[in-house]
Amino acid sequence: MTAIEGVLANVDANLDTAIRKLLALLAIPSISGDPAYAGSVAAAAGWLQGELSGLGFDARIVPTAGLPVVLAHSRPDMHEEGPGLLFYGHYDVQPVGNLEDWTHPPFEPSLIMEDGLRRFYARGSSDSKSQLWTFIEALRAWKETRGAFPGKITILLEGEEEAGSASLPAFIRDHRDELQCDVAFICDSDMWSPTQAALTTQLKGLVHEKVTIFGPNPDLHSGFFGAVAANPIRILSNILSSLHDATGKVAIDGFYDGVPDIPETLRCQWQSLCEGAHMLESTDLRGGSIEAGYSPLEAIWGRPTVDMNGITAGNQGPGERSVLPGSATARLSFRLVNGQDPETVREKFRTFVRRQVPDGCRVEFEGANGSRALVTRPENPFLQAVSDGLEAEWQTPTVHKGSGGSVPLAEMFSDVLSVECIIIGFILSDDAIHGPDEHYDVERFHKGARSWVRILDRIAGLKT
Amino acid sequence: MTAIEGVLANVDANLDTAIRKLLALLAIPSISGDPAYAGSVAAAAGWLQGELSGLGFDARIVPTAGLPVVLAHSRPDMHEEGPGLLFYGHYDVQPVGNLEDWTHPPFEPSLIMEDGLRRFYARGSSDSKSQLWTFIEALRAWKETRGAFPGKITILLEGEEEAGSASLPAFIRDHRDELQCDVAFICDSDMWSPTQAALTTQLKGLVHEKVTIFGPNPDLHSGFFGAVAANPIRILSNILSSLHDATGKVAIDGFYDGVPDIPETLRCQWQSLCEGAHMLESTDLRGGSIEAGYSPLEAIWGRPTVDMNGITAGNQGPGERSVLPGSATARLSFRLVNGQDPETVREKFRTFVRRQVPDGCRVEFEGANGSRALVTRPENPFLQAVSDGLEAEWQTPTVHKGSGGSVPLAEMFSDVLSVECIIIGFILSDDAIHGPDEHYDVERFHKGARSWVRILDRIAGLKT
Repeated sequence: MTAIEGVLANVDANLDTAIRKLLALLAIPSISGDPAYAGSVAAAAGWLQGELSGLGFDARIVPTAGLPVVLAHSRPDMHEEGPGLLFYGHYDVQPVGNLEDWTHPPFEPSLIMEDGLRRFYARGSSDSKSQLWTFIEALRAWKETRGAFPGKITILLEGEEEAGSASLPAFIRDHRDELQCDVAFICDSDMWSPTQAALTTQLKGLVHEKVTIFGPNPDLHSGFFGAVAANPIRILSNILSSLHDATGKVAIDGFYDGVPDIPETLRCQWQSLCEGAHMLESTDLRGGSIEAGYSPLEAIWGRPTVDMNGITAGNQGPGERSVLPGSATARLSFRLVNGQDPETVREKFRTFVRRQVPDGCRVEFEGANGSRALVTRPENPFLQAVSDGLEAEWQTPTVHKGSGGSVPLAEMFSDVLSVECIIIGFILSDDAIHGPDEHYDVERFHKGARSWVRILDRIAGLKT
Repeated sequence: MTAIEGVLANVDANLDTAIRKLLALLAIPSISGDPAYAGSVAAAAGWLQGELSGLGFDARIVPTAGLPVVLAHSRPDMHEEGPGLLFYGHYDVQPVGNLEDWTHPPFEPSLIMEDGLRRFYARGSSDSKSQLWTFIEALRAWKETRGAFPGKITILLEGEEEAGSASLPAFIRDHRDELQCDVAFICDSDMWSPTQAALTTQLKGLVHEKVTIFGPNPDLHSGFFGAVAANPIRILSNILSSLHDATGKVAIDGFYDGVPDIPETLRCQWQSLCEGAHMLESTDLRGGSIEAGYSPLEAIWGRPTVDMNGITAGNQGPGERSVLPGSATARLSFRLVNGQDPETVREKFRTFVRRQVPDGCRVEFEGANGSRALVTRPENPFLQAVSDGLEAEWQTPTVHKGSGGSVPLAEMFSDVLSVECIIIGFILSDDAIHGPDEHYDVERFHKGARSWVRILDRIAGLKT
C-alpha cells in the first residue's frame, strides 16, 4: 500500500462517522439571510470550531460586523513540507422558501435509498455543507494516516455567503497576513456530470437589486380608481417586460459596453460540451429565452444576463381583494462577464428604470455589494495538478468549464491576497440547490473526500 | 313639531348611544376572506341579531354554505301601512393587509377629533358597518317615535360580500318568498362629496381571476439557469404588460364586443361632473393610464377595465435568494359595462393568456362567480322619492352617478326577486376603504341616519 492508498483507505473506513457528523451539521438551520436565524448560524460556527479543534487545528470563531467566520490553521509542527493551502467553504444556507414545497423537512436529514444512492435531503446539503466536509474529511484522513497535514493549511468557513458576503471583504483585509497562501481552493461549485468532475475556470459577476415602484397614493379601491389611477403592478410589469428585446438581449442602454466576444476557441470547446451536458439534460429548458446567436452553455457561461428572482405587490391572498396597491416590488440579479463593472451596471439599470417611472410615482432601489466576473489563468501551476487528481479519482478527464454562478470571494482573494483561486466542487445541477428538497448523497460525498486526497497528493508532488 | 321632525329629533338625541354600539360592532374582526376569522364573522352576526331583536324585529341567523346571513322582518302588527322595503347591508370586512401600514389598529376604534370631525378608524368603518347602522338607526328612531315601522321591513345583512358572495345566490333563491318587496335598498355606495349625497344608478360588473404561470421545473438556481430556462415572472410580466395597448385600451381580443358607446347626453352630464368631483380631487391621479378619448368619470363609470390587484412569485425576502421561481401568480379583476357577459370576458382573457404561455410551461386559472353591469331605470317610482329625501337632508341636489364599483347583489335581486334596487350610501372615496387606516366620522353617520328618516317619510308619502 503506497502512502496515498493508506489515506484513501482511511477515508473509506471512516465514511459512516463522517456522514453522521455531516448530518448533524445539516440539522442546524444556519440561514444567513434571515436575522431570526442568527443564533443557528452561531451554533453551526461553534460546532465547526469544535470539530476542527478536535482534528488538531488551531481553530477559532472570528466575529464580523455580520455573521461569524470560522478560521483554522495547522500548527507549524503539525504539517509536512509543502505549499500554503487555503480552503474556503461556507456553512450558512439559503432560506427555505415555502415549507409546503418540501416533501422532506429541510433540517431533519436522514439517509434514504433512492436511485441506487444513499441520498439525504436538507437545505445546505449540496450548497455547501457537504462540500466543506469533503476537504475537512480528506485533511483529517491525511493527518491521521501520516501524522501531519500536507503543507501549511488554512481553513476559512464563511457564515454569510448566501446573504451577500457583506462582511467578508473587511475580514479578508483585516486578516490578510494570516490568510497568505500559495493557492486558494474555493469549494462551492459543480461537477460536469454525476460521473465526471470539473474545475470552474470562469465565473460570473453578480449584482442584486431590489426595486420598488410607489404610486402617488396608498392602497386604493380598484373599482373606484382602476380606470384612472397609477397601478404600480402595471408600471412594474411594463418595466420588467421591457428588460429584454425580441432577440433575448438585455435592453438596458449600454448593458453590453465593454463585453468582448467569446473567443472562437472557447466557443468551439463549449459547443462541444453542450452535447450531453448533464446540467442541460437534467433540466427542462422549454419556455426559456436564450439570447439569439448563442448556444445554451455560451449563454450561461459567457453572456451577461438579468434575472427576476421575486415579485410582490397587493393582494397575496387568501381571498380576493379589489385593491390598487400603493407599491410593487421586484428583486432582480445581474450576472456579469469580464469587462463589466458591477456598479456601472447597477447605475445603468437604475437609469433605465427611472426613465419609465411616470410623473407622480417614484422608485426606490436597494442593492448590496456587487462582484466582478473572474477567469482563472490556464498557466496557474496548481490547475493541472488538481485536474489530474480529480481525473485519477473519477477515471474520466476533468472538464474545465465556465459557470453561470458567482463567487465574489474569488475576486477578493485575487485583489487582497494576490492569490489565484481554484474553483472546485461536487454539486450537481439537479441537487435542487436554493430550491425545495435540496439533496446530496453519500456516494458523491465519499468520492469528493477521496478526490481531495488525490489532489493533495498531486500538489505535494509538485513541490518535490 | 311634525311627525318627521320628531323622528329626526330622536335620531339626534340617540347619537351617542348609536355610535357606542357601532364602535362595538367595528371591534369585531369579521374578515370574510380569511377562514381564520370565521368565528369573528359569526360573532358579528350574533351581535347584529341581538340588536335587531331588541328593536322589535323577528331576527334570525341563517346559515349558508359559506358565512351566515342575518335576516330580520318587522312583525305584521308592528308596521304602518306602506310598501315592502328591503334593506341590504354587509357586516363582513376586507382583510387588513399589512398591519404595519395602519397607524391606527384596525379593530380598536375610538373617536378622534380630526379636521373638525369626530373620526374613527377601523377596517369596515366605511365599508360597510357604518352604512348598515344608518338605516337600522333610522328604523329604530321611526318605531320609537311613531310606535311602528314605516311599512313591511326586511333587513338582509350579508357576511361574505368582501369574499365574493358565493353563498348569496342560493340564499336569495331559497328565500325568495320572504324577500319579496317593492323596492330594495342596497346601502354600500358612496356620496358625491362630503356635503352632497348621490344615488348610484349605474354599476359595473365584476370578474375576478387568479392566474398562475408554471415553468417546467421547480425552483432553479438563477445563476445556473437564468440565461436559458423559463422564468415564470418574466412570462407573467410580459402577459400583464400586453394587457393594454399604447392608448390604454384593453388588448384582449374581443374585449369590447357588445360594448355600446356612452350616450352623448350621459357623456355631457358626466363631463360636467368631472369638474370639482370629490373622488377625483381627493386622489392623486398622476401616473395613471386613462383610456384615450375618455374623461376620468367616463373611464370609471362607463368603460370596461382590467386591473391587477396582486402579484406574487419567488423570493419574498428578507434577504436575497438567487432563484428562478417555479411559478408566478397574479390576481386580476375586470370591471364590466352593460353588454358584457362575465363568463365570456373570462374566457376571452384565458384564451389571451394561453396564447402567450410558451411550450413546456402551463397556466392555471381560478375565478369565482362574476356579475354583470346594472343600470337603474330612471322611471323607477322610488328613485325620485329617495333623491328628494337626500336633497332635503343635505340641502343640495342629489347627484345621479355611475360607479366603478360592483354590487353583484343588484343583479341577483333583479333576476330572482324581479325588484329593482336603489343603490345608496355614505362612503367617501378618501375613506381608505380596502386600504390601511380605513375611517369614517360621527357627523357623516349622523346625517346618514337622518337621510334615511327623510327617505322613509318621502316613500310613505308616495303611497298616500
